[in-house]
Amino acid sequence: MLDSVLVHAPATIANLGCGFDVLGLALTAPYDVVRVSRSATPGVQIRHLDHYKLPTDPARNVAGGALLTLLRHAPAGTGFAVEITKGIMPGSGVGSSAASAAGAVVGANALLGNMFTPMQLVDFAMDGEAVASGARHADNIAPAIYGGFTLVRSVAPTLDVVPLAAPPLWVTVVHPQIEVKTADARKVLPTSVPLNRAVRQWANVGGLVAGFLTADYELIGRSLEDYIVEPARQPLIPGLAEARRQALAAGALGGGISGSGPSVFMLNVTEVTAQEVGAAMGRVFAALGIDFRVYVGPIATQGARVVEEF
Amino acid sequence: MLDSVLVHAPATIANLGCGFDVLGLALTAPYDVVRVSRSATPGVQIRHLDHYKLPTDPARNVAGGALLTLLRHAPAGTGFAVEITKGIMPGSGVGSSAASAAGAVVGANALLGNMFTPMQLVDFAMDGEAVASGARHADNIAPAIYGGFTLVRSVAPTLDVVPLAAPPLWVTVVHPQIEVKTADARKVLPTSVPLNRAVRQWANVGGLVAGFLTADYELIGRSLEDYIVEPARQPLIPGLAEARRQALAAGALGGGISGSGPSVFMLNVTEVTAQEVGAAMGRVFAALGIDFRVYVGPIATQGARVVEEF
Repeated sequence: MLDSVLVHAPATIANLGCGFDVLGLALTAPYDVVRVSRSATPGVQIRHLDHYKLPTDPARNVAGGALLTLLRHAPAGTGFAVEITKGIMPGSGVGSSAASAAGAVVGANALLGNMFTPMQLVDFAMDGEAVASGARHADNIAPAIYGGFTLVRSVAPTLDVVPLAAPPLWVTVVHPQIEVKTADARKVLPTSVPLNRAVRQWANVGGLVAGFLTADYELIGRSLEDYIVEPARQPLIPGLAEARRQALAAGALGGGISGSGPSVFMLNVTEVTAQEVGAAMGRVFAALGIDFRVYVGPIATQGARVVEEF
Repeated sequence: MLDSVLVHAPATIANLGCGFDVLGLALTAPYDVVRVSRSATPGVQIRHLDHYKLPTDPARNVAGGALLTLLRHAPAGTGFAVEITKGIMPGSGVGSSAASAAGAVVGANALLGNMFTPMQLVDFAMDGEAVASGARHADNIAPAIYGGFTLVRSVAPTLDVVPLAAPPLWVTVVHPQIEVKTADARKVLPTSVPLNRAVRQWANVGGLVAGFLTADYELIGRSLEDYIVEPARQPLIPGLAEARRQALAAGALGGGISGSGPSVFMLNVTEVTAQEVGAAMGRVFAALGIDFRVYVGPIATQGARVVEEF
């Protein structure tokens, strides 16, 4: 019987292009490292080994919130001790809280003999997301659990996550070191949208899903455009429009804001292009005096996974 | 050199489930029969061999409107004589005008040595649709040309039709013999939609496209639901809600209004189910004293096509 597992839990891109609230994908870097161990004490204890000063009260911690829900479906008396080393900077827009929540439930599930399905783990981890954001959303959690490219077709009344095939793609993520407050990112969202613009958006969602499933890179590129959310949020990220222009000029298929920002992602056919695209976007932020980090890697085919067992 | 061709041009379902304005598919029945012949007289002459008393002035006829546009891209002096026998009742909601326009341009293209691409033919035929409806839309034209299941990702500034694979499916179409005026069907459309409902709709569009491309029948069934247009148009078709309930009870995956109605479609895994679904829906309309026709067939893998050459 396992006593302890070490889990790598990937960063993820939600609100992928036109797919606000529904499409996401998993990254190979950065990732959180989550160690989950059996504990003789029923319930959950959380420690953070990083420097982010996140709350460790389980009810106020994303991994804790996820595990408290999981425990309601586990044998009575079960206890977990969790140590989290965040590789993903909170607030960067690449699913930091989702990664910690996903890593925790995947680790706990391994210790419980994998008694839960991936869909159940998504459901549990959504309660971790709710600790962070106040809402049960799954668009980062789904790729953090399943890996690859995911569609959250429905959250309520029934959770319906559809894992989808993805062709080889290289993802560039540039994280400009500015703060985009989630409250601000929400406040600028329109509450209603013109029907004709909504139609263009769902045409693109259809195109993006088809592009992934048929490995049609040009279709992916044409379909990434978000007509509704990104135009509203663009002013929150200085340099975004120019960064996008430079990325496309450097050969990116397309991209946009990752999650609710400030990170910006681009999809690319080759690693060389992905690196050039990162450099091109970086120059835009540098010229504005904004520090930034660049991550380049393929889409992660796996979600949060056990990398060591004890 | 061919002098004359006979074309079968299929009925189509536009506004497929959640895919208002963008998703459509081609039916094996009913269909229009369009004969296109070379004419020594430049331009277009139209005859109708059916009893529908449709206009035969080319500028006011859907096939004529399509061919007048095609001729602007054809060698100078080209002329066509067209004879149309409509198998599709105008106003039934299964792409009657699109079929005649598609049949005409496919026939003309065959006589011209297939100098145009399918995408160009869609573009030309949209001008035929505009004769009938005043708007250049492609959601019936695209499947009428390409066959199968199609996504119209964009109409303007660039026409972008994406033909998609479809699994074996049986389509039931029930045409209740009532009139739904296009103007009424448009008038009830909301001009704007709540963002959260638009998100549910594009999640379903993603699910429906994925369901078709991965032959996931349950996903297709779950994804067909239209949260935006069908609730607004349902009152225009007496018995629709009950017909849907009976169809689902009889085993249909799902369905909805075809085009802007009054025809109603359901998708099914087997022919037996499709027949039973047709009978179940028919009983609902019969009980309301509404005459109806039922069509059952597989998705047409081909669009408008030459069946005889002279």
